[in-house]
Amino acid sequence: MARAILAGAGQLPGLLLAAGPAHLVRFAGVAVTAAADRVIDARFERLGALYADLRAAGVTEVCLAGAMTRPDFDPSLLDSETAAVLPRLVGAMGQGDDALLRTVIALLEEAGFAVVAAHDLRPDLVAGAGVLAGHRVDGPDAPRARAVLDALGALDVGQSAVAGRGQVLAIETLQGTDAMLEFVAQTAPGTGGVLVKRPKPTQDLRVDMPAIGPQTVRLAAKAGLAGIEIAAGAVMILDRPAVLAACLATGVALWAAP
Amino acid sequence: MARAILAGAGQLPGLLLAAGPAHLVRFAGVAVTAAADRVIDARFERLGALYADLRAAGVTEVCLAGAMTRPDFDPSLLDSETAAVLPRLVGAMGQGDDALLRTVIALLEEAGFAVVAAHDLRPDLVAGAGVLAGHRVDGPDAPRARAVLDALGALDVGQSAVAGRGQVLAIETLQGTDAMLEFVAQTAPGTGGVLVKRPKPTQDLRVDMPAIGPQTVRLAAKAGLAGIEIAAGAVMILDRPAVLAACLATGVALWAAP
Repeated sequence: MARAILAGAGQLPGLLLAAGPAHLVRFAGVAVTAAADRVIDARFERLGALYADLRAAGVTEVCLAGAMTRPDFDPSLLDSETAAVLPRLVGAMGQGDDALLRTVIALLEEAGFAVVAAHDLRPDLVAGAGVLAGHRVDGPDAPRARAVLDALGALDVGQSAVAGRGQVLAIETLQGTDAMLEFVAQTAPGTGGVLVKRPKPTQDLRVDMPAIGPQTVRLAAKAGLAGIEIAAGAVMILDRPAVLAACLATGVALWAAP
Repeated sequence: MARAILAGAGQLPGLLLAAGPAHLVRFAGVAVTAAADRVIDARFERLGALYADLRAAGVTEVCLAGAMTRPDFDPSLLDSETAAVLPRLVGAMGQGDDALLRTVIALLEEAGFAVVAAHDLRPDLVAGAGVLAGHRVDGPDAPRARAVLDALGALDVGQSAVAGRGQVLAIETLQGTDAMLEFVAQTAPGTGGVLVKRPKPTQDLRVDMPAIGPQTVRLAAKAGLAGIEIAAGAVMILDRPAVLAACLATGVALWAAP
Protein backbone atom coordinates (compact mmCIF):
# COMPACT_ATOMS: atom_id res chain seq x y z
CA MET A 1 0.00 0.00 0.00
CA ALA A 2 2.22 2.75 -1.27
CA ARG A 3 1.44 6.45 -1.51
CA ALA A 4 2.12 9.02 -4.21
CA ILE A 5 2.24 12.81 -3.93
CA LEU A 6 0.95 14.45 -7.13
CA ALA A 7 3.04 17.56 -6.75
CA GLY A 8 2.38 21.15 -7.66
CA ALA A 9 4.61 24.13 -6.98
CA GLY A 10 5.50 25.44 -3.55
CA GLN A 11 6.53 23.96 -0.24
CA LEU A 12 3.64 21.61 0.41
CA PRO A 13 4.84 18.53 -1.54
CA GLY A 14 8.12 18.56 0.37
CA LEU A 15 6.27 18.86 3.68
CA LEU A 16 4.16 15.84 2.77
CA LEU A 17 7.15 13.77 1.70
CA ALA A 18 8.52 14.42 5.18
CA ALA A 19 5.38 12.82 6.63
CA GLY A 20 6.28 9.34 5.41
CA PRO A 21 7.56 7.39 2.40
CA ALA A 22 5.90 8.30 -0.87
CA HIS A 23 6.49 8.49 -4.59
CA LEU A 24 6.73 11.98 -6.06
CA VAL A 25 4.75 12.50 -9.26
CA ARG A 26 6.00 15.42 -11.34
CA PHE A 27 3.84 16.58 -14.23
CA ALA A 28 5.59 18.10 -17.23
CA GLY A 29 5.21 21.87 -17.14
CA VAL A 30 4.66 22.08 -13.38
CA ALA A 31 7.49 23.74 -11.45
CA VAL A 32 8.08 21.15 -8.73
CA THR A 33 10.81 22.03 -6.24
CA ALA A 34 10.34 19.02 -3.98
CA ALA A 35 12.77 16.13 -4.38
CA ALA A 36 12.34 12.45 -3.52
CA ASP A 37 14.10 9.13 -4.02
CA ARG A 38 11.25 7.68 -6.02
CA VAL A 39 10.03 9.95 -8.80
CA ILE A 40 7.39 9.26 -11.43
CA ASP A 41 7.38 11.68 -14.36
CA ALA A 42 3.97 12.18 -15.89
CA ARG A 43 2.04 14.20 -18.44
CA PHE A 44 -1.55 15.37 -18.26
CA GLU A 45 -1.94 14.08 -21.82
CA ARG A 46 -1.01 10.55 -20.75
CA LEU A 47 -3.14 9.60 -17.76
CA GLY A 48 -3.16 5.96 -18.87
CA ALA A 49 0.63 5.85 -18.57
CA LEU A 50 0.46 7.55 -15.17
CA TYR A 51 -2.09 5.05 -13.84
CA ALA A 52 0.08 2.18 -15.10
CA ASP A 53 3.21 3.61 -13.45
CA LEU A 54 1.35 4.12 -10.17
CA ARG A 55 -0.02 0.59 -10.18
CA ALA A 56 3.39 -0.86 -11.06
CA ALA A 57 4.77 0.93 -8.01
CA GLY A 58 2.01 -0.50 -5.83
CA VAL A 59 0.44 2.92 -5.23
CA THR A 60 -3.11 2.81 -3.88
CA GLU A 61 -3.29 6.22 -2.22
CA VAL A 62 -2.64 9.60 -3.88
CA CYS A 63 -2.44 13.10 -2.49
CA LEU A 64 -2.67 16.23 -4.65
CA ALA A 65 -0.57 19.00 -3.17
CA GLY A 66 0.64 22.42 -4.21
CA ALA A 67 -0.30 24.90 -6.89
CA MET A 68 -0.86 23.36 -10.31
CA THR A 69 -0.71 25.61 -13.32
CA ARG A 70 -3.24 24.82 -15.99
CA PRO A 71 -1.51 22.58 -18.49
CA ASP A 72 -0.90 23.39 -22.12
CA PHE A 73 -2.29 20.25 -23.70
CA ASP A 74 -0.39 18.83 -26.65
CA PRO A 75 -3.05 16.84 -28.51
CA SER A 76 -0.45 14.79 -30.38
CA LEU A 77 0.63 13.21 -27.07
CA LEU A 78 -2.82 12.10 -25.89
CA ASP A 79 -3.20 8.49 -24.84
CA SER A 80 -6.57 6.77 -25.01
CA GLU A 81 -7.21 7.19 -21.27
CA THR A 82 -6.85 10.99 -21.40
CA ALA A 83 -8.59 11.26 -24.77
CA ALA A 84 -11.63 9.50 -23.33
CA VAL A 85 -11.97 11.98 -20.44
CA LEU A 86 -10.91 15.10 -22.33
CA PRO A 87 -14.47 16.39 -22.80
CA ARG A 88 -14.99 16.21 -19.03
CA LEU A 89 -11.71 17.99 -18.33
CA VAL A 90 -12.30 20.73 -20.87
CA GLY A 91 -15.85 21.24 -19.65
CA ALA A 92 -14.64 21.53 -16.06
CA MET A 93 -11.89 23.98 -17.00
CA GLY A 94 -14.51 26.40 -18.25
CA GLN A 95 -16.19 26.32 -14.86
CA GLY A 96 -13.22 27.34 -12.77
CA ASP A 97 -10.48 25.79 -10.70
CA ASP A 98 -12.79 24.08 -8.21
CA ALA A 99 -14.66 22.24 -10.93
CA LEU A 100 -11.42 21.17 -12.58
CA LEU A 101 -10.03 19.76 -9.34
CA ARG A 102 -13.28 17.97 -8.55
CA THR A 103 -13.06 16.32 -11.95
CA VAL A 104 -9.44 15.30 -11.42
CA ILE A 105 -10.36 13.74 -8.08
CA ALA A 106 -13.26 11.87 -9.65
CA LEU A 107 -10.98 10.52 -12.39
CA LEU A 108 -8.40 9.30 -9.88
CA GLU A 109 -11.08 7.61 -7.80
CA GLU A 110 -12.62 6.01 -10.88
CA ALA A 111 -9.17 4.64 -11.70
CA GLY A 112 -9.15 2.95 -8.30
CA PHE A 113 -6.93 5.28 -6.26
CA ALA A 114 -7.90 6.61 -2.85
CA VAL A 115 -7.50 10.40 -2.67
CA VAL A 116 -6.19 11.56 0.69
CA ALA A 117 -5.91 15.14 1.90
CA ALA A 118 -2.63 16.90 2.61
CA HIS A 119 -3.94 17.90 6.03
CA ASP A 120 -4.63 14.25 6.86
CA LEU A 121 -0.97 13.46 6.22
CA ARG A 122 0.18 16.58 8.07
CA PRO A 123 -2.57 17.64 10.51
CA ASP A 124 -0.01 19.83 12.25
CA LEU A 125 -0.18 22.26 9.31
CA VAL A 126 -3.74 23.30 10.17
CA ALA A 127 -4.42 25.62 13.10
CA GLY A 128 -7.33 25.28 15.48
CA ALA A 129 -9.27 28.35 16.60
CA GLY A 130 -7.27 30.90 18.53
CA VAL A 131 -4.68 33.64 18.31
CA LEU A 132 -1.36 32.59 16.80
CA ALA A 133 0.48 35.91 16.93
CA GLY A 134 -0.25 39.32 18.41
CA HIS A 135 -3.79 40.37 19.24
CA ARG A 136 -6.95 39.73 17.29
CA VAL A 137 -8.00 42.93 15.49
CA ASP A 138 -11.54 43.94 16.42
CA GLY A 139 -13.66 46.46 14.55
CA PRO A 140 -15.55 46.39 11.27
CA ASP A 141 -12.83 45.20 8.88
CA ALA A 142 -12.84 41.42 9.42
CA PRO A 143 -16.67 41.22 9.39
CA ARG A 144 -16.76 43.33 6.22
CA ALA A 145 -14.25 41.08 4.44
CA ARG A 146 -16.13 37.99 5.61
CA ALA A 147 -19.41 39.39 4.25
CA VAL A 148 -17.81 39.81 0.83
CA LEU A 149 -16.51 36.24 0.86
CA ASP A 150 -19.94 34.98 1.97
CA ALA A 151 -21.55 36.75 -0.97
CA LEU A 152 -19.06 35.45 -3.53
CA GLY A 153 -18.35 31.93 -2.37
CA ALA A 154 -20.92 30.13 -4.47
CA LEU A 155 -19.39 31.70 -7.59
CA ASP A 156 -15.99 30.03 -7.11
CA VAL A 157 -14.39 33.45 -6.60
CA GLY A 158 -12.89 34.97 -3.50
CA GLN A 159 -10.67 32.88 -1.29
CA SER A 160 -9.59 36.05 0.50
CA ALA A 161 -10.46 39.71 0.83
CA VAL A 162 -9.02 42.82 2.47
CA ALA A 163 -10.92 45.52 4.31
CA GLY A 164 -9.50 48.62 5.96
CA ARG A 165 -11.20 51.48 7.80
CA GLY A 166 -14.49 49.69 7.23
CA GLN A 167 -14.12 49.68 3.43
CA VAL A 168 -13.45 46.77 1.10
CA LEU A 169 -9.99 47.28 -0.42
CA ALA A 170 -9.44 44.10 -2.44
CA ILE A 171 -11.07 40.81 -3.36
CA GLU A 172 -8.95 37.86 -4.46
CA THR A 173 -9.36 36.73 -8.05
CA LEU A 174 -7.50 34.24 -10.25
CA GLN A 175 -4.15 35.96 -9.64
CA GLY A 176 -4.05 34.86 -6.01
CA THR A 177 -3.49 36.31 -2.55
CA ASP A 178 -0.01 37.68 -3.13
CA ALA A 179 -1.04 39.70 -6.20
CA MET A 180 -4.02 41.05 -4.27
CA LEU A 181 -1.85 42.17 -1.35
CA GLU A 182 0.58 43.87 -3.75
CA PHE A 183 -2.41 45.74 -5.19
CA VAL A 184 -3.40 46.97 -1.74
CA ALA A 185 0.19 47.97 -1.02
CA GLN A 186 0.20 50.03 -4.23
CA THR A 187 -3.26 51.57 -4.07
CA ALA A 188 -4.44 51.74 -0.45
CA PRO A 189 -1.53 51.19 1.92
CA GLY A 190 -1.44 51.91 5.61
CA THR A 191 -5.06 51.41 6.61
CA GLY A 192 -4.33 49.04 9.48
CA GLY A 193 -6.93 46.73 7.94
CA VAL A 194 -7.40 42.98 7.91
CA LEU A 195 -6.88 40.16 5.42
CA VAL A 196 -9.42 37.35 5.76
CA LYS A 197 -8.58 34.05 4.07
CA ARG A 198 -10.71 30.95 4.08
CA PRO A 199 -11.95 28.27 1.69
CA LYS A 200 -14.77 28.96 -0.70
CA PRO A 201 -17.80 26.75 0.03
CA THR A 202 -17.25 25.10 -3.36
CA GLN A 203 -13.66 24.14 -2.57
CA ASP A 204 -12.74 20.48 -1.94
CA LEU A 205 -10.42 20.69 1.06
CA ARG A 206 -8.95 17.28 0.27
CA VAL A 207 -7.02 18.69 -2.66
CA ASP A 208 -7.22 22.45 -2.43
CA MET A 209 -7.04 23.80 1.10
CA PRO A 210 -6.05 27.48 1.16
CA ALA A 211 -2.65 28.19 2.64
CA ILE A 212 -0.61 31.04 4.02
CA GLY A 213 3.14 31.30 4.44
CA PRO A 214 5.70 33.83 5.58
CA GLN A 215 5.34 35.71 2.28
CA THR A 216 1.65 36.26 3.04
CA VAL A 217 2.61 37.95 6.30
CA ARG A 218 5.32 40.06 4.68
CA LEU A 219 2.96 41.25 1.94
CA ALA A 220 0.22 41.99 4.48
CA ALA A 221 2.74 44.15 6.31
CA LYS A 222 3.74 45.87 3.07
CA ALA A 223 0.05 46.63 2.50
CA GLY A 224 -0.10 48.20 5.95
CA LEU A 225 -2.51 45.66 7.39
CA ALA A 226 -2.79 45.03 11.11
CA GLY A 227 -3.90 41.44 11.01
CA ILE A 228 -4.66 38.21 9.17
CA GLU A 229 -7.68 36.09 9.95
CA ILE A 230 -7.74 32.50 8.72
CA ALA A 231 -10.51 29.95 9.06
CA ALA A 232 -9.75 27.50 11.86
CA GLY A 233 -9.20 23.97 10.60
CA ALA A 234 -9.47 25.00 6.98
CA VAL A 235 -6.32 26.97 6.07
CA MET A 236 -2.83 25.49 6.09
CA ILE A 237 0.07 27.38 7.60
CA LEU A 238 3.15 26.47 5.61
CA ASP A 239 6.36 26.79 7.60
CA ARG A 240 4.76 27.90 10.84
CA PRO A 241 8.00 28.97 12.57
CA ALA A 242 8.76 31.31 9.67
CA VAL A 243 5.18 32.62 9.67
CA LEU A 244 5.32 33.40 13.37
CA ALA A 245 8.74 34.98 12.99
CA ALA A 246 7.37 37.20 10.18
CA CYS A 247 4.44 38.20 12.41
CA LEU A 248 6.84 39.10 15.19
CA ALA A 249 9.10 41.06 12.85
CA THR A 250 6.28 43.00 11.18
CA GLY A 251 3.74 43.34 13.99
CA VAL A 252 1.02 41.72 11.86
CA ALA A 253 -1.37 39.71 14.04
CA LEU A 254 -2.58 36.25 13.02
CA TRP A 255 -5.58 34.38 14.34
CA ALA A 256 -7.79 31.47 13.34
CA ALA A 257 -11.52 32.14 13.61
CA PRO A 258 -13.95 29.31 14.33
CA MET B 1 -35.21 79.53 -9.33
CA ALA B 2 -31.47 79.21 -9.62
CA ARG B 3 -29.39 76.08 -9.72
CA ALA B 4 -26.11 75.12 -8.07
CA ILE B 5 -23.65 72.40 -9.01
CA LEU B 6 -22.00 70.91 -5.92
CA ALA B 7 -18.80 69.97 -7.67
CA GLY B 8 -16.42 67.08 -7.22
CA ALA B 9 -13.37 66.28 -9.28
CA GLY B 10 -13.41 65.34 -12.95
CA GLN B 11 -15.14 66.53 -16.05
CA LEU B 12 -18.77 66.21 -15.01
CA PRO B 13 -19.25 69.56 -13.24
CA GLY B 14 -18.02 71.39 -16.33
CA LEU B 15 -20.36 69.39 -18.55
CA LEU B 16 -23.29 70.33 -16.33
CA LEU B 17 -22.37 74.01 -16.27
CA ALA B 18 -22.57 73.85 -20.06
CA ALA B 19 -26.17 72.67 -19.74
CA GLY B 20 -27.43 76.01 -18.40
CA PRO B 21 -26.65 78.79 -15.95
CA ALA B 22 -25.68 77.59 -12.50
CA HIS B 23 -23.62 78.47 -9.47
CA LEU B 24 -20.54 76.36 -8.88
CA VAL B 25 -20.06 75.21 -5.28
CA ARG B 26 -16.46 74.28 -4.46
CA PHE B 27 -15.80 72.49 -1.19
CA ALA B 28 -12.43 73.05 0.46
CA GLY B 29 -10.20 70.05 -0.11
CA VAL B 30 -11.99 68.90 -3.26
CA ALA B 31 -9.96 69.26 -6.46
CA VAL B 32 -12.46 71.05 -8.68
CA THR B 33 -11.25 71.79 -12.19
CA ALA B 34 -14.52 73.29 -13.49
CA ALA B 35 -14.76 77.08 -13.66
CA ALA B 36 -17.84 79.31 -13.60
CA ASP B 37 -18.75 82.98 -13.32
CA ARG B 38 -20.63 82.47 -10.08
CA VAL B 39 -18.70 80.50 -7.48
CA ILE B 40 -19.65 79.67 -3.90
CA ASP B 41 -16.82 78.42 -1.71
CA ALA B 42 -17.95 76.06 0.99
CA ARG B 43 -16.71 73.75 3.73
CA PHE B 44 -18.22 70.48 4.87
CA GLU B 45 -17.82 71.76 8.44
CA ARG B 46 -20.03 74.76 7.70
CA LEU B 47 -23.24 73.50 6.10
CA GLY B 48 -25.21 76.34 7.74
CA ALA B 49 -23.07 78.88 5.90
CA LEU B 50 -23.49 76.97 2.64
CA TYR B 51 -27.27 76.85 2.98
CA ALA B 52 -27.32 80.62 3.69
CA ASP B 53 -25.13 81.35 0.65
CA LEU B 54 -27.32 79.17 -1.59
CA ARG B 55 -30.51 80.83 -0.38
CA ALA B 56 -29.00 84.29 -0.77
CA ALA B 57 -28.25 83.39 -4.39
CA GLY B 58 -31.83 82.22 -4.93
CA VAL B 59 -30.76 78.59 -5.39
CA THR B 60 -33.60 76.10 -5.06
CA GLU B 61 -32.14 73.21 -7.06
CA VAL B 62 -28.82 71.47 -6.43
CA CYS B 63 -26.93 68.83 -8.38
CA LEU B 64 -24.08 66.77 -6.91
CA ALA B 65 -21.57 65.89 -9.58
CA GLY B 66 -18.12 64.39 -9.76
CA ALA B 67 -15.93 62.43 -7.43
CA MET B 68 -15.84 63.76 -3.87
CA THR B 69 -12.96 62.72 -1.66
CA ARG B 70 -13.94 62.08 1.92
CA PRO B 71 -13.30 65.29 3.82
CA ASP B 72 -10.85 65.72 6.65
CA PHE B 73 -13.13 67.35 9.18
CA ASP B 74 -11.66 70.18 11.25
CA PRO B 75 -13.86 70.17 14.37
CA SER B 76 -12.84 73.71 15.29
CA LEU B 77 -14.60 75.02 12.17
CA LEU B 78 -17.98 73.33 12.77
CA ASP B 79 -21.03 75.53 12.63
CA SER B 80 -24.18 74.55 14.50
CA GLU B 81 -25.88 73.18 11.38
CA THR B 82 -23.07 70.70 10.68
CA ALA B 83 -22.55 69.91 14.36
CA ALA B 84 -26.20 68.93 14.67
CA VAL B 85 -25.99 66.41 11.83
CA LEU B 86 -22.47 65.18 12.52
CA PRO B 87 -23.59 61.95 14.20
CA ARG B 88 -25.64 61.10 11.11
CA LEU B 89 -22.73 61.86 8.78
CA VAL B 90 -20.20 59.90 10.81
CA GLY B 91 -22.57 56.96 11.13
CA ALA B 92 -23.16 56.94 7.38
CA MET B 93 -19.42 57.17 6.62
CA GLY B 94 -18.91 53.87 8.42
CA GLN B 95 -21.41 52.21 6.10
CA GLY B 96 -19.76 53.12 2.82
CA ASP B 97 -20.01 55.69 0.09
CA ASP B 98 -23.61 54.95 -0.85
CA ALA B 99 -24.84 55.51 2.67
CA LEU B 100 -22.86 58.74 2.96
CA LEU B 101 -24.31 60.12 -0.25
CA ARG B 102 -27.82 59.13 0.72
CA THR B 103 -27.36 61.06 3.95
CA VAL B 104 -26.02 64.12 2.14
CA ILE B 105 -29.05 64.06 -0.18
CA ALA B 106 -31.39 63.75 2.78
CA LEU B 107 -29.74 66.73 4.48
CA LEU B 108 -30.02 68.89 1.38
CA GLU B 109 -33.66 67.98 0.94
CA GLU B 110 -34.38 68.65 4.61
CA ALA B 111 -32.81 72.07 4.13
CA GLY B 112 -35.37 72.72 1.38
CA PHE B 113 -33.32 72.16 -1.76
CA ALA B 114 -34.46 69.96 -4.62
CA VAL B 115 -31.78 67.46 -5.61
CA VAL B 116 -31.62 66.90 -9.36
CA ALA B 117 -29.58 64.28 -11.17
CA ALA B 118 -26.71 65.08 -13.49
CA HIS B 119 -28.29 62.90 -16.16
CA ASP B 120 -31.48 64.92 -15.96
CA LEU B 121 -29.50 68.04 -16.80
CA ARG B 122 -27.49 66.23 -19.49
CA PRO B 123 -29.52 63.21 -20.68
CA ASP B 124 -27.21 63.04 -23.70
CA LEU B 125 -24.46 61.67 -21.43
CA VAL B 126 -26.33 58.40 -20.88
CA ALA B 127 -26.45 55.75 -23.61
CA GLY B 128 -29.46 53.64 -24.44
CA ALA B 129 -29.07 49.94 -25.16
CA GLY B 130 -26.96 49.09 -28.17
CA VAL B 131 -23.46 48.87 -29.54
CA LEU B 132 -21.47 52.12 -29.42
CA ALA B 133 -18.18 50.90 -30.87
CA GLY B 134 -16.97 47.68 -32.49
CA HIS B 135 -18.80 44.43 -31.92
CA ARG B 136 -20.36 43.12 -28.75
CA VAL B 137 -18.10 40.42 -27.24
CA ASP B 138 -20.00 37.18 -26.76
CA GLY B 139 -18.83 34.27 -24.64
CA PRO B 140 -18.66 33.60 -20.92
CA ASP B 141 -16.79 36.70 -19.73
CA ALA B 142 -19.53 39.33 -19.54
CA PRO B 143 -22.01 36.93 -17.88
CA ARG B 144 -19.33 35.89 -15.39
CA ALA B 145 -18.52 39.50 -14.46
CA ARG B 146 -22.23 40.29 -14.17
CA ALA B 147 -22.75 37.31 -11.83
CA VAL B 148 -20.03 38.68 -9.53
CA LEU B 149 -21.63 42.13 -9.48
CA ASP B 150 -25.04 40.56 -8.81
CA ALA B 151 -23.62 38.72 -5.82
CA LEU B 152 -21.87 41.75 -4.36
CA GLY B 153 -24.27 44.58 -5.08
CA ALA B 154 -26.17 44.53 -1.83
CA LEU B 155 -22.87 44.96 0.04
CA ASP B 156 -22.10 48.36 -1.54
CA VAL B 157 -19.05 46.85 -3.25
CA GLY B 158 -18.42 46.21 -6.90
CA GLN B 159 -19.36 48.83 -9.46
CA SER B 160 -17.35 46.94 -12.03
CA ALA B 161 -15.58 43.64 -12.60
CA VAL B 162 -13.32 42.08 -15.21
CA ALA B 163 -13.47 38.53 -16.52
CA GLY B 164 -11.21 36.95 -19.13
CA ARG B 165 -11.13 33.43 -20.55
CA GLY B 166 -14.12 32.64 -18.35
CA GLN B 167 -12.29 33.54 -15.13
CA VAL B 168 -12.83 36.50 -12.82
CA LEU B 169 -9.71 38.69 -13.00
CA ALA B 170 -10.65 41.72 -10.89
CA ILE B 171 -13.46 43.18 -8.81
CA GLU B 172 -13.66 46.92 -8.21
CA THR B 173 -13.15 48.08 -4.65
CA LEU B 174 -12.74 51.52 -3.05
CA GLN B 175 -9.79 52.41 -5.29
CA GLY B 176 -11.99 52.62 -8.38
CA THR B 177 -12.14 51.34 -11.93
CA ASP B 178 -8.83 52.78 -13.14
CA ALA B 179 -6.84 51.16 -10.33
CA MET B 180 -8.59 47.85 -11.02
CA LEU B 181 -7.74 47.98 -14.71
CA GLU B 182 -4.10 48.80 -13.91
CA PHE B 183 -4.09 45.69 -11.69
CA VAL B 184 -5.33 43.53 -14.55
CA ALA B 185 -2.76 45.09 -16.87
CA GLN B 186 -0.03 44.15 -14.39
CA THR B 187 -1.19 40.72 -13.35
CA ALA B 188 -3.34 39.17 -16.10
CA PRO B 189 -2.90 41.09 -19.35
CA GLY B 190 -3.95 39.99 -22.77
CA THR B 191 -6.91 37.75 -22.07
CA GLY B 192 -9.26 39.47 -24.52
CA GLY B 193 -11.75 39.67 -21.66
CA VAL B 194 -14.51 42.08 -20.77
CA LEU B 195 -15.02 44.92 -18.28
CA VAL B 196 -18.60 45.19 -17.01
CA LYS B 197 -19.56 48.45 -15.30
CA ARG B 198 -22.95 49.27 -13.85
CA PRO B 199 -24.48 50.79 -10.74
CA LYS B 200 -24.76 48.83 -7.55
CA PRO B 201 -28.38 48.28 -6.55
CA THR B 202 -27.73 50.43 -3.48
CA GLN B 203 -26.48 53.39 -5.51
CA ASP B 204 -28.61 56.54 -5.83
CA LEU B 205 -28.33 57.40 -9.51
CA ARG B 206 -29.35 61.00 -8.83
CA VAL B 207 -25.98 61.77 -7.28
CA ASP B 208 -23.72 58.87 -8.06
CA MET B 209 -24.19 57.40 -11.51
CA PRO B 210 -21.16 55.40 -12.63
CA ALA B 211 -19.22 56.88 -15.49
CA ILE B 212 -16.66 55.94 -18.07
CA GLY B 213 -14.36 58.18 -20.08
CA PRO B 214 -11.56 57.86 -22.61
CA GLN B 215 -9.14 56.83 -19.87
CA THR B 216 -11.37 53.84 -19.07
CA VAL B 217 -11.04 52.69 -22.68
CA ARG B 218 -7.28 53.24 -22.74
CA LEU B 219 -6.77 51.29 -19.52
CA ALA B 220 -9.05 48.48 -20.75
CA ALA B 221 -6.83 48.28 -23.83
CA LYS B 222 -3.70 48.28 -21.66
CA ALA B 223 -5.22 45.35 -19.73
CA GLY B 224 -5.72 43.51 -23.01
CA LEU B 225 -9.50 43.48 -22.83
CA ALA B 226 -11.65 43.11 -25.93
CA GLY B 227 -14.69 45.01 -24.72
CA ILE B 228 -16.53 47.16 -22.21
CA GLU B 229 -20.14 46.55 -21.27
CA ILE B 230 -22.04 49.32 -19.51
CA ALA B 231 -25.59 49.26 -18.20
CA ALA B 232 -27.92 51.06 -20.59
CA GLY B 233 -29.41 54.21 -19.09
CA ALA B 234 -27.37 53.90 -15.92
CA VAL B 235 -23.73 54.72 -16.78
CA MET B 236 -22.58 58.11 -18.02
CA ILE B 237 -20.20 58.41 -20.92
CA LEU B 238 -18.05 61.47 -20.28
CA ASP B 239 -16.72 63.05 -23.46
CA ARG B 240 -18.34 60.63 -25.87
CA PRO B 241 -16.35 61.69 -28.95
CA ALA B 242 -13.08 61.02 -27.10
CA VAL B 243 -14.42 57.69 -25.83
CA LEU B 244 -15.39 56.57 -29.31
CA ALA B 245 -12.06 57.77 -30.69
CA ALA B 246 -10.25 55.74 -28.01
CA CYS B 247 -12.32 52.67 -28.93
CA LEU B 248 -11.42 53.14 -32.56
CA ALA B 249 -7.73 53.64 -31.78
CA THR B 250 -7.47 50.63 -29.45
CA GLY B 251 -9.99 48.21 -30.94
CA VAL B 252 -11.83 47.95 -27.61
CA ALA B 253 -15.57 47.42 -28.20
CA LEU B 254 -18.19 49.30 -26.18
CA TRP B 255 -21.84 48.42 -25.76
CA ALA B 256 -24.71 49.23 -23.42
CA ALA B 257 -26.68 46.21 -22.21
CA PRO B 258 -30.36 46.53 -21.33
